[in-house]
Order: sequence, then C-alpha cells, then structure tokens
Amino acid sequence: MRRRDLLLGGAIACSVGAIAGAPAVLASKKFRWRMVTSWPPNFPVFQTGAERFAKQVYAMSGGRLSIKVFAGGELVPPLGVFDAVSQGGMQMGHSGAVFWAGKAPATQFFSSIPFGMTGQQMNAWLYYGGGLELWNEVYAPFNIVVFPACNTGVQMGGWFNKKIGAMADFGGLKMRIPGLGGKVLSKVGVNVVLLPAGELYMALERGVIDAVEWAGPYHDLQIGFHRAARYYYYPGWHEPGSAIELLVNRKAWESLPKDLQTIVSVAAAQSNLLGLSEFDAKNGLALNDLVTKYNVRVLQFPAEIIRALHKLSAETLEQIAAQDPMFSKVYSSFKTFAGKIDAWTEIGEKAYMEAPGG
Amino acid sequence: MRRRDLLLGGAIACSVGAIAGAPAVLASKKFRWRMVTSWPPNFPVFQTGAERFAKQVYAMSGGRLSIKVFAGGELVPPLGVFDAVSQGGMQMGHSGAVFWAGKAPATQFFSSIPFGMTGQQMNAWLYYGGGLELWNEVYAPFNIVVFPACNTGVQMGGWFNKKIGAMADFGGLKMRIPGLGGKVLSKVGVNVVLLPAGELYMALERGVIDAVEWAGPYHDLQIGFHRAARYYYYPGWHEPGSAIELLVNRKAWESLPKDLQTIVSVAAAQSNLLGLSEFDAKNGLALNDLVTKYNVRVLQFPAEIIRALHKLSAETLEQIAAQDPMFSKVYSSFKTFAGKIDAWTEIGEKAYMEAPGG
Repeated sequence: MRRRDLLLGGAIACSVGAIAGAPAVLASKKFRWRMVTSWPPNFPVFQTGAERFAKQVYAMSGGRLSIKVFAGGELVPPLGVFDAVSQGGMQMGHSGAVFWAGKAPATQFFSSIPFGMTGQQMNAWLYYGGGLELWNEVYAPFNIVVFPACNTGVQMGGWFNKKIGAMADFGGLKMRIPGLGGKVLSKVGVNVVLLPAGELYMALERGVIDAVEWAGPYHDLQIGFHRAARYYYYPGWHEPGSAIELLVNRKAWESLPKDLQTIVSVAAAQSNLLGLSEFDAKNGLALNDLVTKYNVRVLQFPAEIIRALHKLSAETLEQIAAQDPMFSKVYSSFKTFAGKIDAWTEIGEKAYMEAPGG
Repeated sequence: MRRRDLLLGGAIACSVGAIAGAPAVLASKKFRWRMVTSWPPNFPVFQTGAERFAKQVYAMSGGRLSIKVFAGGELVPPLGVFDAVSQGGMQMGHSGAVFWAGKAPATQFFSSIPFGMTGQQMNAWLYYGGGLELWNEVYAPFNIVVFPACNTGVQMGGWFNKKIGAMADFGGLKMRIPGLGGKVLSKVGVNVVLLPAGELYMALERGVIDAVEWAGPYHDLQIGFHRAARYYYYPGWHEPGSAIELLVNRKAWESLPKDLQTIVSVAAAQSNLLGLSEFDAKNGLALNDLVTKYNVRVLQFPAEIIRALHKLSAETLEQIAAQDPMFSKVYSSFKTFAGKIDAWTEIGEKAYMEAPGG
C-alpha cells in the first residue's frame, strides 16, 4: 500500500515536473472514460469481467486511464451499447456482436454461428487467422475499434417446457434465441424473440416465451431458468463458442498514447482467457447443482434433429452470403479456417477426449 | 512514432521533475532485466512468444521495464533456466515445469500429466481452481514467482521408426519423453532420455534415440522429425495440455512497483492465450503438410495400448503421491477439479464435436 501511494504521488509530481518541458505532459495525461455494457449489474463473468478489466487497466496505467463501468440500463439500454460507442457518447462498450445483426449481418460471425467453431478455435481464427482484422473491418464504418474480451465456450442448447423429440416439436414455440440460430429455428416455425439477459427469466416465467437459450449452466443457474422450465438440452449447436466484445470509440482510441493502447489490448486478451476459464471452471459445478438439487432433466437433441438443423444452418448461411458481400467475405474466411483447424481438432482434442480408459 | 517519442521524452522529464519530491522518483525508475529460456533461437511460439511478451511489457510500461531475452545456451544451458532464476542471476525465465521433476516431483502437474486435463481445462484449474496458487507454493522454496505463459494444447503421441501395435513394441526403445509420460513408458521397457529441443533432431537422426515426442505438428515440422522417423502417433496421452511457464526471481519481483507487477501478470496471460491460439491455428496446416508433402504416416495408438497406459499412469501417480506429500496435495486438487470439469466437457465440447452432420 505504501509503495502504491508513493507511486501515485510520483505520477502527480511527474505531471508538474513535466510541464516545464512542454509536450512531455502527454506521458501523465489522465483519461476518465465510461464503459456501458449489455449485462445486468454484477452479472458474473460478463459484468464482473468488464469491471476486472477496468481495474487492471487502472493498475497497469498507474491511474492514467480510469474506466467507470455501467451495467445495462444504467446509462443506456442493454442493446443500445453499440450506438452509444459508435456515436462517441461512451468511450467503451462490453457486449456481443450477435446483437448487431440488424446493422450488418456479418457481425454474427464474431459471436458464434450455428455449427461454427468452438471458443478455442474462435480464438485461433481471431488472433491468427485474420478474424480480428475482418471484425474491425466490419465495425470500421461505425467508428468502432473492437477486441475479443471473453468467450462462453460451447453453450447449452436451451431450456424447454416440453420434450423436443422431432423437428415438428419446434413448431409454434416462442423462443428467445438471437442471431443465426434464431433465423434457422424461424424456418421451422419458431417465433423468435430477442430480449436482453435481464428480462429473460420473467418472460419465461410468465409465458411470454416458451423456451430460451442464454449460455451455459453457470449463467443459466444464476438467472434461474430451472424454476421456469424443466428440460435442458445439449449440445449448443447454435453457439459453440461465443466471443464477447470490447468496443472502443475510434476517436477515443486514437486519443490514447501508444502505451495505453497496448495496455487496453493486452488487458482485453487477459479478459478473454479468464472469461473462458471461469465459465469452464464453474459450468461443471452448476450443471451438477441443476441436476441433483433442482431435478433438471438434461437431454441430448436426437441425432436426426441435429442433422436437420445442420443442413438448415448451411442453407441459411449460403442465402445471406448470396445477398451480402461483407457477410460472404467473412463467411469464406471463417469456413476455410474452420475446415483446417477441424482436421487438427479431430486427431488432437477430440481423439484425446475419446481415448478409452478415462 | 512522434507521439511515442514525446512519451519517452515525458518519462525522462518526469524523472528529473520528480527528484525534487524525493520518493516520487519510484514512478519512473527503470528496470533492465534479462530473461533466459529453454528454447532454440527464434523457436516459434515459445521463443517468439517470450520475445513478444518482452515487447508488450516494454510498450505497456512506457519503457520502464525492458527485458532482454536470451535463447537456451546463450547465457545459461536450456535446462539451467530454473536455477539461474532461483539464484537471482537472471530475473526471468521461460521454460516448462516438467523439466524440474528432479527438484520437486509436484512440478510436473503444471506442465501436463498423462491422461490429465486439456489446455483449456488446465487454464480453468490454474486461474479458477487453485492451480496457480499451488504452483507458486511448489516454487516458493526456490524463490520463484510463476505465471502460465503459453500452452501447447493436446500434443501428438510421438515419432517412431516402427509401428506400435502392442505394449511389447515399446520394449527396448530409446525415447525422448520427459516427466511422468517417460516414467510410465520406462515401466514397459523404454529407455527414457531427456534432451532439450535443440538436440532432438540430431539425436533421432543419428540413432542416439529411436523415438521422440516433442509437441504437435507445427513445432515437430519445424524441427524436422519427419526426415528421421516415419510414424506419427496420436493421441498425445502423455501431455494433453502442456502449460509453459514464466519464472520471475522473487526478489526481482518484489522490487517492481505494483503497476509493473500487474503489467507482467496481465502480459503473461495474454501470452498464454496467444500461444495456444497460435498452435491451434498452425497445427492443422502443418499436419496437412506432413501427410501430403512428406508422406508421414499418421496413426492412432490401438485402444488396448491406451487402456494399458492409462492404468499404468494412474498407478504411477498413486505411487509418487504415497511418497511425496506436496505431490499428493497437488494431485488431489488436480484430480478433483478434473473430475468436475470433465462432466461439463462431456456434454459441452465433446458432445458438440461429436454432433452429427458436420
């Protein structure tokens, strides 16, 4: 604590000392920023992750970049984050690219797509397969610089109040499922609803929706879906590795000196890793609680349903690609990379997970 | 560039300005450190990752912490890294915990153990399951503070000059395979050899060893094992997710102000994520080259071999745990966590990877 005080004192002395040498004052210029998120207050991993990110940046910058984090609805609505950062009212946002399909269909690749890559594969594509460059290209017209800042890993397939034994069982369901997964299910008669996290439980409990998917066991247990639905399906075919995004207004970004820019980008990568790690560590425990304490029925989608959804998903992606050049460009990169990494996953991760004797 | 120059100028002015206010000089104190590694010069992902880490720390600290990175053998031998950092001759090291089994058997859990956790699971344990605290506890008597700084992901099972069709085929092989994997194979007649990366190819090519495992296709192709052995086996039962470590001498660590400590720990996490992502992105391409350009035969260990190795591995772990209390303590944490996370991986990642229609 004492060293920390001295350090802060040093920064102040520094600012004063530097004034004599005109432009040197840059080194100790202080930035006070605001970050808005799409998550409820204290929402684990997402909101707490955004807050830890802000804390780390503050510590690494010796207090020169302080970011005050606001939950969804505190300053702007949960789904108003993108616009707020795009217009510059807020310097930073923490949200999910899947929510902005209405602005540019290609955004959806940067959360997760049906039968797409897992969280680990997504990171390989984003950092080493050109994915992050494409993401920034898609967001450039909106004056937003973007970084991956968390990943849910493979999600669950959703909560239902009746068993899903055949494709016909989807017909007439009112379900919260965003993005391309929703688009696919709408083709088999699902009425797709888009709601932010904070409104999901009430909607399910009051029958505004019959089914819902959010993320995995840890989040879903926190929200309490098990009190309003009984059947919990897997695998999460529609979101096998959803990235969560850190948005930065471009003008704000460009106002940062290089050291603070590096601090932001490195802290975002740390958040990305810690988020996936936290989900992985806590999903198992939550799943166990859901089954043993709350009698949730964990069921696997029948193979013929998965096959049909896979076919529909591929058709849906091709249809949008035929209409939207940027979607087509990103899809091409995504598909090519996925093909290559799958060949490795097959004899790497998958073969290991399937090894007998475990 | 100009802003960067101004910034550095600012730091210098700052130091001068701060001297008036005695202890404030701490804020701009400069640290010039050396990091020694166990890797050959320019060795991809490991050595290049250590160098990127140093660059990021330099950028984030505005030049206050500069780390000069030396490859294995440049200042100390590849396997002398731990001692050099422990004794304080070097402030930092970049290596693998598996190499220090002779100092404390428990170190091996912090690379990877036979039939242990995958890279993603390892990160969940290290960051959210108490693993990193245990790692630091194991290294504390050596005056070393440790961070995970890379992960190979699931490795391959190794290169062989003959087919491995039954357990008897291991008998009499001279094989480079470190850690517990080596201990297990020594029980079935393998003569286990421990050599650093830079000496492996020559040893295999000259027949000093008959078989070798290093990591995965990307590294293995770089080293050139395919020119000296024909059969490339999977899965990597012995190292399903090897962490790579950043070592920091404790006294050096404690000399850093809090902001630089945070910069080091956050940059290590970024390196960890980028390392695994880079391996995942490049292993697929390398595997494809090995098969199509170099006619390597990629073969799966027969199920009965995997079953037998699994049984031998469990026995080996129990035996060491019975003799070494710290090993036993870490093993207990590892095993408990692995059991819980496996239940989630089973219906998460694994069920998704096995979903039909892909």
